[in-house]
Amino acid sequence: MRHSTTRRNVLRGTVAAAGLAATAAAPAGAAHAVPPKGSGPDIGILLYDGYSLLDPTGPAEVLSRLPDATVTMIAEKRGAVRTDTADVAVVAERSIDEVDRLDVLLVPGGGDRGTVGAMNNQALLRWIRAIHRHSRWTTSVCTGSVVLAAAGLLKGRRATTYWASAEYLRSTFDVTYLPQRYVHSGKIITAAGVSAGVDMALYLASLLTDDDTAKAIQLAVEYDPQPPFDAGDATEASPQLKERALQLLASSQV
Amino acid sequence: MRHSTTRRNVLRGTVAAAGLAATAAAPAGAAHAVPPKGSGPDIGILLYDGYSLLDPTGPAEVLSRLPDATVTMIAEKRGAVRTDTADVAVVAERSIDEVDRLDVLLVPGGGDRGTVGAMNNQALLRWIRAIHRHSRWTTSVCTGSVVLAAAGLLKGRRATTYWASAEYLRSTFDVTYLPQRYVHSGKIITAAGVSAGVDMALYLASLLTDDDTAKAIQLAVEYDPQPPFDAGDATEASPQLKERALQLLASSQV
Repeated sequence: MRHSTTRRNVLRGTVAAAGLAATAAAPAGAAHAVPPKGSGPDIGILLYDGYSLLDPTGPAEVLSRLPDATVTMIAEKRGAVRTDTADVAVVAERSIDEVDRLDVLLVPGGGDRGTVGAMNNQALLRWIRAIHRHSRWTTSVCTGSVVLAAAGLLKGRRATTYWASAEYLRSTFDVTYLPQRYVHSGKIITAAGVSAGVDMALYLASLLTDDDTAKAIQLAVEYDPQPPFDAGDATEASPQLKERALQLLASSQV
Repeated sequence: MRHSTTRRNVLRGTVAAAGLAATAAAPAGAAHAVPPKGSGPDIGILLYDGYSLLDPTGPAEVLSRLPDATVTMIAEKRGAVRTDTADVAVVAERSIDEVDRLDVLLVPGGGDRGTVGAMNNQALLRWIRAIHRHSRWTTSVCTGSVVLAAAGLLKGRRATTYWASAEYLRSTFDVTYLPQRYVHSGKIITAAGVSAGVDMALYLASLLTDDDTAKAIQLAVEYDPQPPFDAGDATEASPQLKERALQLLASSQV
């Protein structure tokens, strides 16, 4: 093969090679150098059986690019935790017993089975409350806000959730539902369904650092969304499309 | 707690409960019922050490909602495969030796270490070529297109890739680079960086089914993107922002 595959040349592209190489080799603290991972925000993402894959992984992709950040997948027990469709498993690196402080907690959503399971898991809810007591930010994606509500964290607050769970959230808890991509209330930030976690994570990145860093992360993950259809807004969707969406969810979930 | 958490009531929301319950309970083949998983497209996503987390997981979220679809994470060996930042591991459920046919192959991108590692792994490249011979669609996200090129699949084709790898792709292989969100060339579809995999997956979903189903999936994952900044387009980004993005990538990767 004639292609050159020397390390660090694939991503040089439009940026001067020397600049990138110098940055990569620069010691911590040098001018323009980004400090090594680990001394920055400690971000924990809770997994539970039946979460939706993009809820934790979209924000993890964004937040893991924060300078010095550590992103840790956490579950009731260490090990592989399976998604709502059962197709995919992400590894929980730590159990909740091993984690008593986080700068950022993120609670993903899931299908009914997963969400209800988490809402009824008193050990998880106790842990969420304990982490929230000292967190800088407590966040959720999709029906993760329903789990936060079940833990008692959303009392009297404004919040968002998955479009199809809005009525449940509003009617079950003392929560003012806002149909926004994400809602910031005190140190709690809730995101709308599934893919909204990426938008929320960029916002959170700006809060943890600054707008320029968040913009650089957006470019790093090339988040210039151009979906081929314009069908993601539930407030504009027909009843038929909503029913079809929920059918696809129900039939894909185990 | 006063909240009701009976199974299947969290997601009822704005859709008639009876309709959803009937759908969920309907046998395969009944009117309006979505057939059970497994008889539809067999979608395989290749993992390798050092991939970027959102590259496989964004498309997996979308494609796992296709009627009857099976999404399988595949790697050289079964087991946990770690991302470029080493923060997260997704489980490969099958080894490449166990998979000789797929309807859809998706090759994610990664950091330099991961991408170059995949490009130099002859066993992986052989497997990619063998799967491509019979696939309906062979797809990539981010620098995954560089891996497809290294396997010899992009000769004389138009393709896209991660913005910072465009020059490398163009100058190293016989490829016409197009700065698009995704590029369709024969049965190969390449996506731009990281988050572009979600857009590409919705397009692929429409090819595998129809526009209405793809739109329903878009609504199911509430993909109505509203990033807090407008910084994801490399053709509009300043040299400073590009350098900062690549610095953040370099320092977050191991």
